Amino acid sequence: MRAACYVGDRTFTIVESSSRPPGRGEVELDIAYTGICGTDLHAFRGTYDRELDLPVVLGHEMSGTVAAIGPDVDAWEVGDRVAVNPLQWCGTCPACVAGSSHVCQGLKVMGFNLPGSMQDRLTVPARALSRVPDGIGLDVAALTEPTAVAVHDVRRAGLRPGEQALVVGGGPIGVLIALVARADGADVRVVELGEERRRLAESLGLTTFDPGAGDVRAAVEEWTQGAGVGVSFEVSGSAGGVDTAIQALAVRGRMVVVALHESPPPVDLYRVFMREISLVGARVYETAAFDAALGLLGAGEIPAQALITRVEPLEHVEAAFLALEQGQAMKILLDCSGGGILD
Amino acid sequence: MRAACYVGDRTFTIVESSSRPPGRGEVELDIAYTGICGTDLHAFRGTYDRELDLPVVLGHEMSGTVAAIGPDVDAWEVGDRVAVNPLQWCGTCPACVAGSSHVCQGLKVMGFNLPGSMQDRLTVPARALSRVPDGIGLDVAALTEPTAVAVHDVRRAGLRPGEQALVVGGGPIGVLIALVARADGADVRVVELGEERRRLAESLGLTTFDPGAGDVRAAVEEWTQGAGVGVSFEVSGSAGGVDTAIQALAVRGRMVVVALHESPPPVDLYRVFMREISLVGARVYETAAFDAALGLLGAGEIPAQALITRVEPLEHVEAAFLALEQGQAMKILLDCSGGGILD
Repeated sequence: MRAACYVGDRTFTIVESSSRPPGRGEVELDIAYTGICGTDLHAFRGTYDRELDLPVVLGHEMSGTVAAIGPDVDAWEVGDRVAVNPLQWCGTCPACVAGSSHVCQGLKVMGFNLPGSMQDRLTVPARALSRVPDGIGLDVAALTEPTAVAVHDVRRAGLRPGEQALVVGGGPIGVLIALVARADGADVRVVELGEERRRLAESLGLTTFDPGAGDVRAAVEEWTQGAGVGVSFEVSGSAGGVDTAIQALAVRGRMVVVALHESPPPVDLYRVFMREISLVGARVYETAAFDAALGLLGAGEIPAQALITRVEPLEHVEAAFLALEQGQAMKILLDCSGGGILD
Repeated sequence: MRAACYVGDRTFTIVESSSRPPGRGEVELDIAYTGICGTDLHAFRGTYDRELDLPVVLGHEMSGTVAAIGPDVDAWEVGDRVAVNPLQWCGTCPACVAGSSHVCQGLKVMGFNLPGSMQDRLTVPARALSRVPDGIGLDVAALTEPTAVAVHDVRRAGLRPGEQALVVGGGPIGVLIALVARADGADVRVVELGEERRRLAESLGLTTFDPGAGDVRAAVEEWTQGAGVGVSFEVSGSAGGVDTAIQALAVRGRMVVVALHESPPPVDLYRVFMREISLVGARVYETAAFDAALGLLGAGEIPAQALITRVEPLEHVEAAFLALEQGQAMKILLDCSGGGILD
C-alpha cells in the first residue's frame, strides 16, 4: 500500500501505509481515482496549516471498488463500484439537530481532518457510499463530489427554469455549476479570464464573457435587456469577482457564495440594499444532492469527462498540484489503483 | 404656506410656497407632522448631493388630513386623517413587471426626488393614502413609514416565532424592528453603544447588549447555547456592525441589510460560506407592509409614542437635524400644521 502524504510546505511524500481492516458498519475500498480540487490547492498553499493535523492524506473526490466488508454491512458486496461522500457529521450540534448536518459545526471531511483518498486503499463508513451507475467510468465517477457541489449551489440559488444566471469563474466548479444550471433550464453565461478555460466551456456549448475584453456589466445589461440576472455564482474567490457577481444582479437577484475568500472582500451592501439582493452561502452538499449528482452523471446530462485534462499516477501528485496552480489544467485525476511504484 | 427647503451645504431656508391644487386622482393634504429620518440625515450630510435636485423639500414620514380633493377621487373626504406612502413607481421597468414595484428601477420618493412633507401642504396621489385608525394621534401616525420599514425588514428575514434575533443598532429603525420582531414572537436583543438609546429600548422591555462593555459574540454564544441567532438585522451602517451581525448568526442564519453603507465594508464571506449564511437586502416596504404597520400601531402593539423625543416647529428644522446628528434625540417630529411664523 502507498499513500501520498502532504507534509506541509508544498511538499508530498509517497509512503508505505498499512490498510486498516473495516470495522462494524465499514467497508474497505480499493481507490480508483482521486480528483484534485481547488480546496486541496488551498491546503497546498498553507491556507489550512493551522487547521490540518500534518502530515495528512488529502483527497475527497474519489471513486473506487469495495475490497472488504466489515460486520453489519448488508447493502454492499466486494467489487461494487462506488463514489464516496466524504462528509462525516456529529449528529448532535445545533446545525445537525436543525437538519443541516452537511454544515455540522464539528464537520469532519475525508482528506482534511479524516484520512483521504490519495492512497490506494481507504476504509470508510458504508453509509458514505453511493453506487456508480453502469455506463460511467470510475474516472468520471470521481467527479461525483464536485458535481454534488454544483447541484447544491444551484439548489441554494433557488434557480427557476428560464432564469438568466451568470457564473463568475470558469474552473471545474464554475463549469459544473453552469452545466447543472443549464440542465435545470437556465440561460447561463460564464465569466472567465483564462482563454483555455473559456474555450473548454464553449466546447460544451456554454457562452462566455471575457472580462479582459470588455465591460461585463454592460454586456449583462444588454443580455438581460436592462434587468440584470436572477442568479449569479461567485466562484472566483476574488474581490473583483464578488463585485461582478453583485453588479450583474437584477432586483431581488441572488448571489451564491461558492468560493473561499481567505480575507473579507469589500461588498457593495448599498447595491444589496437598493436592489434587495440576497447573498447566499453554499457549502458542500446535502446527501440528496450527492445522489442527484450521480444521477446527472449517469444520465449523461453532465459531460464531466470533458473536464478531465489528464490522469496522472499517484506518485506525480506534487507535479500535478503545481500544474493546477499554474493554470495548466482543468481537472487532474490521480490514478490511485494498486500496482504503483512502491508495490 | 411655508416650506422648509433644503438648499444643500447643511442649510435649510423657510420659504413661502404656493399650494398646487389637486389634479385628477389627487388630494391635497394639510400636513400635520413630519418625522426626520436617518436617510434625511444622509441628505443633510451631502451623501445624495449628486442625486438630489436642490433645493428640495425633504420629508417622507408624514401624517395629515385631507384638505382638498381632485376629480375622480371617491374614497376620501375632506378632514380624513391619513398616513402617506411616499413611494411612486413606474409600473413598467423589469422590477415592477416582476411584482417588486417598491424597488422599481426608477423609484421616486416624496422628500427626495418628489416634493416632501416638510411644509404645511402637499398634493399627492390618492392611491398613496392610508386611513389612520381612530385612537392613534397624527403624531404617532407619522411613524407609520418607519414602522413599515421595520415590518418589511422582519418579513424579509423570514423570521419564525420563537427564533432568536439580534438587532445591531438601537436607533428608531432598530428599536422598531425589535418591537415588530417581538410582536411576531421572536426572542430579541438589541446591540447599541449609546447609553440613552439602550435605556429607551429597555424601557420598552427589550434586552440590550452594550458592545463597549463586553464581547457581543461571546454573549450571543451564551444566550443561544452555542448555536448563534437565526436572524440578525444590520441597522448600524458601520463595518463593525456588519461583522457583529454576521458572526452572531447560526448555521443557515439570515442577516438583513437594513442600513445604508456609503462605501462597501469588508464582509466575512468565508463565514457566510462556512455557515451557509444569507445576507438579504431590504429596502422600504411593499404596500401590504405599510398597511400592516398602521394595523400594528392602531392595535397598540408597537409603542411608537415612546420613540418621539420631542416635537419641534417646522422653523426649527436645522436645529433638529443638528440635534439628531449629535445623537441628542431618538425621533424628532416637525409640526407642519398651518399657523407658523410665516402665516
